[in-house]
Amino acid sequence: MEAEQLIEHELRRILDFATQAPCPPRLAAAYRYAILPGGSWIRPRLTLAVAQACGNQAPGAALAYAAALELMHCASLIHDDLPCFDNAKTRRGRPALHREFGEPLALLTGDGLIVLALQWLSLEGRDGGGVLPALHNQLACAVGAPAGIVAGQSWEEESEIDLRAYHEAKTGALFSAATAGGALAGGGEAQAWGRLGARLGEAYQVADDLRDALGDSDELGKPVGVDQALGRPSAVLQLGVEGAAQRLRDLVAEALASIPPCPGRPALLATIEAQAKAILAGCKVRAAA
Amino acid sequence: MEAEQLIEHELRRILDFATQAPCPPRLAAAYRYAILPGGSWIRPRLTLAVAQACGNQAPGAALAYAAALELMHCASLIHDDLPCFDNAKTRRGRPALHREFGEPLALLTGDGLIVLALQWLSLEGRDGGGVLPALHNQLACAVGAPAGIVAGQSWEEESEIDLRAYHEAKTGALFSAATAGGALAGGGEAQAWGRLGARLGEAYQVADDLRDALGDSDELGKPVGVDQALGRPSAVLQLGVEGAAQRLRDLVAEALASIPPCPGRPALLATIEAQAKAILAGCKVRAAA
Repeated sequence: MEAEQLIEHELRRILDFATQAPCPPRLAAAYRYAILPGGSWIRPRLTLAVAQACGNQAPGAALAYAAALELMHCASLIHDDLPCFDNAKTRRGRPALHREFGEPLALLTGDGLIVLALQWLSLEGRDGGGVLPALHNQLACAVGAPAGIVAGQSWEEESEIDLRAYHEAKTGALFSAATAGGALAGGGEAQAWGRLGARLGEAYQVADDLRDALGDSDELGKPVGVDQALGRPSAVLQLGVEGAAQRLRDLVAEALASIPPCPGRPALLATIEAQAKAILAGCKVRAAA
Repeated sequence: MEAEQLIEHELRRILDFATQAPCPPRLAAAYRYAILPGGSWIRPRLTLAVAQACGNQAPGAALAYAAALELMHCASLIHDDLPCFDNAKTRRGRPALHREFGEPLALLTGDGLIVLALQWLSLEGRDGGGVLPALHNQLACAVGAPAGIVAGQSWEEESEIDLRAYHEAKTGALFSAATAGGALAGGGEAQAWGRLGARLGEAYQVADDLRDALGDSDELGKPVGVDQALGRPSAVLQLGVEGAAQRLRDLVAEALASIPPCPGRPALLATIEAQAKAILAGCKVRAAA
């Protein structure tokens, strides 16, 4: 099966598990709404690509981990869209979850997905054997305090912001975890591969800032201009549009250069290059000549 | 060390772990505010007492699990107190966390504590060996969908409520998990011991309903009359004050009768009897003659 089909199949298995009786019907519906149809699955696809490149020693653990990352990502989107944060009306071209199901269920759905992610990895990642504890810890660190996405989001509540810690945690953490976890499950070394994710994560953040500043709400499926309206740190506000575009090109180049030697390097390079192209095109930045 | 000291020491270790650099300072402060000074620690003490009664075969796993349960309980209180649920002003005699740190940090603190609970159990419960995966799953099931506290709270968002599923999930799940997990870590059998927690959990819920209907806000450290104001299902609204008091006595008796044979039965009986007395006294219900 292609990566996309594998991920969708795994997410459907997870939904069946979580929404079985006696799950309250509206909570079950909210879970489904949160997960499918999904977004670009950029993080789980990255995990599977890296696991494959490293030798794919524990495919069950790689897939469980990839799906768990996606659940964490979905949970973070739902909570970020809530009125006390972005107060977003739309997400993926549909009403944001709290606009469809109400704020209480949105909060609970996010909570439940966080639990489900770590639970699913423990239950279904067992072919990871000795690396399963490291995978579990990797996933938890990418989300919780002191340096996961929860910490990243929390920097917005400080009077003085540590910009590097903010970006590394808010966007970088899940991307680093995507490549580090893929490496662990595949038979590679987490730290070296984490750098690839970190660069891609930063690239993704800069691209997001560019889209937020320049983008078209209908095309994105979510509101634009939010960073400036909320006075949030943004690469565009810091570097200007052209500076941010150049930063994005540099990050993509650094990401490609950081890929460690591994059995499946050529195929992985092609995958990452395609992703990078999509990132650049998504915010209308021309690739370096 | 006494159970109380063990729990406090473990919670302090957890806080040190989660709030290390580069944790945003206000998030770190919110974590500390959320955890210490703690509540009655009724769930973690129950876990340790049951583990002890069963033979205490993996004391590290029992303690990590007990502390993880307490983190989940704290997370659920923080999220329940938010404006979209109870909109509570106070908790444990102090401002509720969102009143002290704002709604965004309250939401994030709850999210982070959920991650931390499952992470800590995985990291520190390793002396549990072969039972660690079951402990992890037990904890996750007690919190997530389809039947954990997230599901329990979600029943309040349904137009038709399954009262039994609601109570079992909202309060019972963490109590059943307290005794079942203690049994697993101690060397006993989860299912038989889960029943003790289920009865105690239901007793605690009925006692809470009685206190909410009759109690004194200053004495409780949180607002009263919330169930009726929010039209929530409550044993007092269902059975009346005397009916609820009788139900509470019955549940306490059933809990005591359900304790399975085990090496440390007499000491455990004494602990549970003391807890039961405290529950009854807390809502001014006389024990059965």
